[in-house]
Amino acid sequence: LGPPIYTSQRLYDTTPPGVVMGLGWTPMGGVSMYVETIVKNILSSNSTPSLERTGQLGDVMKESSEISYSFSKSFLSKHFPNNKFFEHARLHMHCPEGSISKDGPSAGITMATSLLSLALDTPVPATTAMTGELTLTGKILRIGGLREKTVAAKLSGMKEILFPKSNLADWEQLPDYVKEGLTGVPVAWYDDVFKRVFSNIDAEKCNNLW
Amino acid sequence: LGPPIYTSQRLYDTTPPGVVMGLGWTPMGGVSMYVETIVKNILSSNSTPSLERTGQLGDVMKESSEISYSFSKSFLSKHFPNNKFFEHARLHMHCPEGSISKDGPSAGITMATSLLSLALDTPVPATTAMTGELTLTGKILRIGGLREKTVAAKLSGMKEILFPKSNLADWEQLPDYVKEGLTGVPVAWYDDVFKRVFSNIDAEKCNNLW
Amino acid sequence: LGPPIYTSQRLYDTTPPGVVMGLGWTPMGGVSMYVETIVKNILSSNSTPSLERTGQLGDVMKESSEISYSFSKSFLSKHFPNNKFFEHARLHMHCPEGSISKDGPSAGITMATSLLSLALDTPVPATTAMTGELTLTGKILRIGGLREKTVAAKLSGMKEILFPKSNLADWEQLPDYVKEGLTGVPVAWYDDVFKRVFSNIDAEKCNNLW
Repeated sequence: LGPPIYTSQRLYDTTPPGVVMGLGWTPMGGVSMYVETIVKNILSSNSTPSLERTGQLGDVMKESSEISYSFSKSFLSKHFPNNKFFEHARLHMHCPEGSISKDGPSAGITMATSLLSLALDTPVPATTAMTGELTLTGKILRIGGLREKTVAAKLSGMKEILFPKSNLADWEQLPDYVKEGLTGVPVAWYDDVFKRVFSNIDAEKCNNLW
Repeated sequence: LGPPIYTSQRLYDTTPPGVVMGLGWTPMGGVSMYVETIVKNILSSNSTPSLERTGQLGDVMKESSEISYSFSKSFLSKHFPNNKFFEHARLHMHCPEGSISKDGPSAGITMATSLLSLALDTPVPATTAMTGELTLTGKILRIGGLREKTVAAKLSGMKEILFPKSNLADWEQLPDYVKEGLTGVPVAWYDDVFKRVFSNIDAEKCNNLW
Repeated sequence: LGPPIYTSQRLYDTTPPGVVMGLGWTPMGGVSMYVETIVKNILSSNSTPSLERTGQLGDVMKESSEISYSFSKSFLSKHFPNNKFFEHARLHMHCPEGSISKDGPSAGITMATSLLSLALDTPVPATTAMTGELTLTGKILRIGGLREKTVAAKLSGMKEILFPKSNLADWEQLPDYVKEGLTGVPVAWYDDVFKRVFSNIDAEKCNNLW
């Protein structure tokens, strides 16, 4: 109980697997916004998979989480066919802070990365933020508010920001003082995201993890 | 039936497992507010787990209870892997008083502590109150109204109040006469809460309880 | 059809198991108000338990019935562990009169007593009325309108009224002519209610009833 306060800060110095920083846009400016996913129960061979979501998510963002979930399952089964994580994991995805309503499709790649990070038991770099709408086939679509989101990423201490390649012209028009200290990474397909944030994984180990 | 009356007092001299004092904020000041959870049925190996909630909880507080439930399951399975409480327990969580509407995310750590207290069959100190939003990974987020909540904790006879470390500056600005007789404990992660309120548990026994 | 008429009288000369008189408060004064619960189907080992409610109950009163149901299950499993009533009984709880809207938490102990009366197949004294909010752990909380409720109890021919111990000061301030002929019994925990209304039960028999 109490008046809502948006801390809008970097909550994690190191991020555990399942935690990824996204970026939101509000009428008052950009905000950094984590997606965090955990496994609710110990994985067992007869547990039925599920995805619970909290964080006052609007309809579009709920659908976005479903798209990310389907995409992640499909991606994992293609690239790590022996990894059975999604066949058994009972997942809970939360977007702090719990009292702030959130909506829109631009956390798509962030949600997919949160899920895959958990499935591969591999954290993503704590200083990487990302924004982009995801389609079921892994195509990344243009988002709004790149300037505000870039400012928010910097205020939260990020070093790298992944954004849709179709927003490249917006990026190039940002003044240098806004981009200073930030590496911008345009991504057209989810493969581009994956290669960037999971560059050091042991594919053999990840394939036989669960 | 009758006009609602908020007693706002300390209801319990000793608290059974599952009962923890939280703190709320209202336009008229702070209030102490218990979270109490019980097991509805005797645990049996084939009972399916569930969590029922009452107490006129708003949407944010309902989500907060889900986050606390997922976190508690995950916490128990990591630290007490043989304790199968949450795999079978049919739980009911209630926030008296039943006619007062309540909302907001700041009872997160109180709810998680209520659930873990029950899972570990261990009461928490009856003179400890707590407030803090909980994320799925156990991070504790800033809350509002610390001053009013501190006053309410004192009026209810508390000796100790746990609050988010990110509210430390607010705590330090409180005048001494408000804090007198109260130990303030800043907590950044749920681990900090756990060590403080369950300091004397027998880990071996708790691991093999259910 | 026509304006609703509240009979406000004693409906039962002897009460069957499952029927208990509660007391309500309205702007026009107190009213006596039965809670009656029946078993819908013959108990069988594979019937799944349920609780249906009718009587134009508001949100708070519905939650109150859920609290009473959870508490009753928990109470029975602690004190009569072999009594499997709540594991199979399909129950229906009704608060006559069906066209009068009712709300508030103060029928908590009345509802729990109705359910336990049925589970123990034991009627409660027909001249005992009761009022009190119940928490999940069996604590009984303060209610409003004790004066009006006491008058209603007398008008309905009651000899005894159970009320929350935290209302004791209100009781003591009532003029003698209001209390005349009524025994007031302050109750702090549900145990106090149980000992008063089920004083003559055969514990061994009740434990092996179903």
